[in-house]
Formats: sequence, structure tokens, C-alpha cells
Amino acid sequence: MPQLPDSIRNAAAAFDTLPGVGPRAALRYAYWLVTQPKEAIGRFARSVQGLAEGLTICTECGQWSDRSVCAICTNTERNTSVLCVVATSPDVQSIEDTGAFKGRYHVLGGTLDPIEGRTPDTLSIQKLLKRIQASSDRVTEVILALNTDVPGDVTALYLKQQLEPLQLKVTRLARGLPTGAALEYADSMTLADAVKNRRES
Amino acid sequence: MPQLPDSIRNAAAAFDTLPGVGPRAALRYAYWLVTQPKEAIGRFARSVQGLAEGLTICTECGQWSDRSVCAICTNTERNTSVLCVVATSPDVQSIEDTGAFKGRYHVLGGTLDPIEGRTPDTLSIQKLLKRIQASSDRVTEVILALNTDVPGDVTALYLKQQLEPLQLKVTRLARGLPTGAALEYADSMTLADAVKNRRES
Repeated sequence: MPQLPDSIRNAAAAFDTLPGVGPRAALRYAYWLVTQPKEAIGRFARSVQGLAEGLTICTECGQWSDRSVCAICTNTERNTSVLCVVATSPDVQSIEDTGAFKGRYHVLGGTLDPIEGRTPDTLSIQKLLKRIQASSDRVTEVILALNTDVPGDVTALYLKQQLEPLQLKVTRLARGLPTGAALEYADSMTLADAVKNRRES
Repeated sequence: MPQLPDSIRNAAAAFDTLPGVGPRAALRYAYWLVTQPKEAIGRFARSVQGLAEGLTICTECGQWSDRSVCAICTNTERNTSVLCVVATSPDVQSIEDTGAFKGRYHVLGGTLDPIEGRTPDTLSIQKLLKRIQASSDRVTEVILALNTDVPGDVTALYLKQQLEPLQLKVTRLARGLPTGAALEYADSMTLADAVKNRRES
């Protein structure tokens, strides 16, 4: 695209780096943005720049935060006896959005995958164990809220072994049919889980 | 999401404004970007800011350009006797990417749609007529390269009427089966076009 203005090319190249955004969508975003008021473009640029400033990792749970200890860890109204272990900060958001959990979180920083070099010492696992042992509020249950794929399952298995000596309840998220699913289209592993974990209605 | 850091919330809100990007994808982009080096985030922000600076509309053809007359309009090696009329600047890119056209462009700035208030005087139509009449290089053919939807068809019809007095060849892009299409899945209007416009092989 030799005749494409540099600024559009640069913006499209930037959008192209985002996960799941291809060159066509990136160019579309750049062309859309250029038609917006200069003020809106400036606001967009500043909000992106804001991601490079003032964000830190919560020293307690490890999620992205604008304070050294995040709003969830400092919230005294949350249940401190249940700890929900997730892989990444966005996972915290997903669970918070459900409103179904009122305890605290621990962000591992990823899942185990030896092939990709993600060994136990690259994750926040030692810190999790220390956190549980050091806590003045006794943690009685750890929920392993990990993806239901191979790395998620491997990580959950490893964590269960590590947590065993601490003698607390270790649970995992339920597996079964998602809401709105048709039996006809469910894959057989999901359906097998749903049968195995059936409940009295 | 009360406990979401402001900077992540702001960046997600900015991405959410992009066409076709929903709140979940926007949050994903913000979370991905925050894990990047500060330098990369700064580069991203500057490239967005660049869209607010130094971009203008080519005084000849009306496409986005970093000069007052764009690289295509100033290119003396292009065929000045064929003018390709498109709705928007990205359409110029799409046609340039094919390499199948070596003439010049005219960007209308949209298509006609009275319901949305897009009347002929909101588009660069008078300028198109003047441009053809004033041109020192005689324009012999105008290609109407518009979307094949209702607004595109209406606009093409209107332009054909307006161009009639100038006595030049007015063409439209061919309609038929897209490459890689299966007859079985083609909609009947497309297939009817393909039969009507069949060519000797």
C-alpha cells in the first residue's frame, strides 16, 4: 500500500498487534478513528498511554491494580476464608461479573505448559502456599477456577498436590452443559461431564 | 466492574468505541496491551495520536492523504482517462490492493440514503462533475465502484443520470459469483447475475 498516508499505516500497524485483530480490521479501525473529532482521537491516545502509567500488580493477589493492594484485597466485607485461584487478571473480572463469588482471589500469572517453558516456578504458586499459611484469617477452601483445557487441567492437578499438606478443601468449577445449550450439539466430553455431575432437580 | 483500575477501564472504553469491537474484546485488548513493554504502549498511543495530526483530504479526489494532493493524483504514470468513483477512502485501498486498476479515483464520501439524511448535496457529486469537465486530460470512462447493496445501487443510478450529459462511458463493477464460491450456497440474486452476465470461456 505505497500511497497509504503514514499516520494511517502506523495506526493500522498498532491495531494489528492486538490479539485477534487482523490487518483488514486494523485498517478499518484506523480509517474509522481518523474520521472522529481530534479531541476524541486525543482521548483515545491518552487512554492507551494511561496503560503504561500508574498500573501495578497487587502485592497480595497479583492482579493488575492502580494501588499496591487492590480493591478486592482491601475490602473487609469479603469472605477471607475462600480463595479463588485464577490464571490471569481478566479471569478475576469474569468471575466478579457473575456476582456469584464474594471471597478473595489469587492470580497465578498463567498456566503450566512445559513445552512453552511455563514451569511451576514461573507462576505465583509458592506465593499462594505462603499466603495461605501466613494468613491470619484461616483459609478453609481454595477454588481452582482454571480453563477446562489441557494446561488448565494440568495446573489444577499440580496445585491440588501442592495444597494437599495444608489440609483444606480444594474445589474446581463445575463442568456440564453451558446455559442455552442443545444436547444435540454438545460435544461428548461435555455431555459425559454433565451426566456424571447430574443433580437432583 | 467497581474494582477495575481506572486506566484499564478507560482503555477498554476507548477500544469499545471502534466499529465491531464489543466490551469483552475491548477489555481483552486493554489487558493484553497492559502486559506489553511501556515503550510499545507509548508507540501505540503516539500512532493513534498521529491520526489527529497532519492528515487532510486530497483536494483532487477526496481521499485521506498526508499531502494536499494525494500520491495517486500526483502520480503522472497513472491513466488519467479513467476515473473510478468510490464511496470511501478504504474502498480506494481495496481496489489498489487488487492491482487491477491504474487510473485515478474520486471519493464520494458515502452513498445516498435519504432516510439517514444522506442527500446528493452531502456527497462530492458536484465536484465530480466539475472535475470531469475541467480536466485537461479528457476522462473517457467513469467506473462506479460502489457496494452492491441498496444505497450503492441507488447512488450508482443517480450518478449515471448526472453523468449522462457529459457523454462518456459509465461502467459498474461486474456482478457474479465470488471466487471459491459453491453454486449450491450462492443466493439466487447473485446466481441470476452470474447467469445473465455469463461470458464465453
